[in-house]
Amino acid sequence: MNAEIPPGYVPRELKGGFSINFGPLYFDKGNGRMAFRVDDQHLNPVDGLHGGALATFADAHIALFYPEGVATHCPTINLNVDYLQPAMKGDWVEADITLVRATRRLVFTQSLIRIGDSVIARVTGLYRNNGIPVTA
Amino acid sequence: MNAEIPPGYVPRELKGGFSINFGPLYFDKGNGRMAFRVDDQHLNPVDGLHGGALATFADAHIALFYPEGVATHCPTINLNVDYLQPAMKGDWVEADITLVRATRRLVFTQSLIRIGDSVIARVTGLYRNNGIPVTA
Amino acid sequence: MNAEIPPGYVPRELKGGFSINFGPLYFDKGNGRMAFRVDDQHLNPVDGLHGGALATFADAHIALFYPEGVATHCPTINLNVDYLQPAMKGDWVEADITLVRATRRLVFTQSLIRIGDSVIARVTGLYRNNGIPVTA
Amino acid sequence: MNAEIPPGYVPRELKGGFSINFGPLYFDKGNGRMAFRVDDQHLNPVDGLHGGALATFADAHIALFYPEGVATHCPTINLNVDYLQPAMKGDWVEADITLVRATRRLVFTQSLIRIGDSVIARVTGLYRNNGIPVTA
Repeated sequence: MNAEIPPGYVPRELKGGFSINFGPLYFDKGNGRMAFRVDDQHLNPVDGLHGGALATFADAHIALFYPEGVATHCPTINLNVDYLQPAMKGDWVEADITLVRATRRLVFTQSLIRIGDSVIARVTGLYRNNGIPVTA
Repeated sequence: MNAEIPPGYVPRELKGGFSINFGPLYFDKGNGRMAFRVDDQHLNPVDGLHGGALATFADAHIALFYPEGVATHCPTINLNVDYLQPAMKGDWVEADITLVRATRRLVFTQSLIRIGDSVIARVTGLYRNNGIPVTA
Repeated sequence: MNAEIPPGYVPRELKGGFSINFGPLYFDKGNGRMAFRVDDQHLNPVDGLHGGALATFADAHIALFYPEGVATHCPTINLNVDYLQPAMKGDWVEADITLVRATRRLVFTQSLIRIGDSVIARVTGLYRNNGIPVTA
Repeated sequence: MNAEIPPGYVPRELKGGFSINFGPLYFDKGNGRMAFRVDDQHLNPVDGLHGGALATFADAHIALFYPEGVATHCPTINLNVDYLQPAMKGDWVEADITLVRATRRLVFTQSLIRIGDSVIARVTGLYRNNGIPVTA
């Protein structure tokens, strides 16, 4: 499999058994992006990207906004995923992630997930705020 | 870990790398239930059940309605998960799953996910129909 | 139009311009139900029940759990509606509504919306708690 | 009330009883925007914008993509609204609307709803395609 990583991305191994099995995520904080490459451990019974794997990727988007150098964990309240197109082994799956609003208690994120220019999913996330600076 | 399985449930290993890493699911078709026991491979960085693991469990609910003995795969169109309470290693997590409606093209499911009597999540799923009998 | 109201329901006019234009809702607190009859003011351009009218009905479900005799208003945080089948003028539209969980800060509701036995929509609601007793 | 309409917007009265009661929407197709001004008929019991009124506005977003001069109606399959901040009478409420993808059968839209620069809601919509050109 092509393990080439586009410029701007740095690998980030998240902690905990579920994330370790998922494998590396790639963060590009400057451009508000997160990515991973679809591999064997992400596949469903028909050899496409598993819906749960995509949801797992989506659930992790909040980590892009965690302050550096501080252990932070914002529990998920709601995760809503629309699946538009399948993905296959070897695909480089990228999310453009927006921090829509952070209040003292809640954080609203959303994203479009793409392979190249083709949108394969969209996501809205609602998290309990636990360390992300409040937006205007 | 206590691996005791309540009566009515039978283990079912789903195929594909992502499901294999997740581990066994337990089906109780007669009562419209599916379950799993939280173990190391489901944990997040703070030792609770990972949001993505719960979403993966939720995404699999449709399999309860697949006809026996036929290879079926209904791709997910929308998955919406509300997280109400955390779960921990060792918890037996059960979903009461309803097939709300199956048309020729779409299948609507929903569920409440519980630990004992305590609801920890609720889920709505929308899938492309690919082999599930149409409801009235 | 047939204005016959099934037993158990009592009319309840909600306040505010938007609710007044919508017209009467019918509450059956004992059975956890709310209903209305589709009339001219609820129609879309093709003479069916407007998606926004159904969402308005859905948004009002929280009112079923307001304590009696106290002015209460729980602002909506999330409303998610799946539309399964259309409804027409004259239809008696009923919702079976569940209070899934009320914490100190949040209230989770959900419902199936029916015409007779036929489910036409399903709804999940998340509200800021502002007066509803906390559940176990 | 200030009835001033910003440049680029043209009023569009939608048909059907529910839309007529809602009042005029303003379309700015060139910039992918739709708007309305909050007035008495949109208010909830505590004098803010009713959650159902905002959902009604959200449900109408698909109309921005209807071809000109053809009677089109794309029924809603899913509408998901997150409410971030309240709105009051007199506010000019604008939505920046994206057509995420149109297949032969489905249309995926999403929007951020703003008052000035302040996001008050976000929306995802899924509609049955009934006349909108398929995207790449």
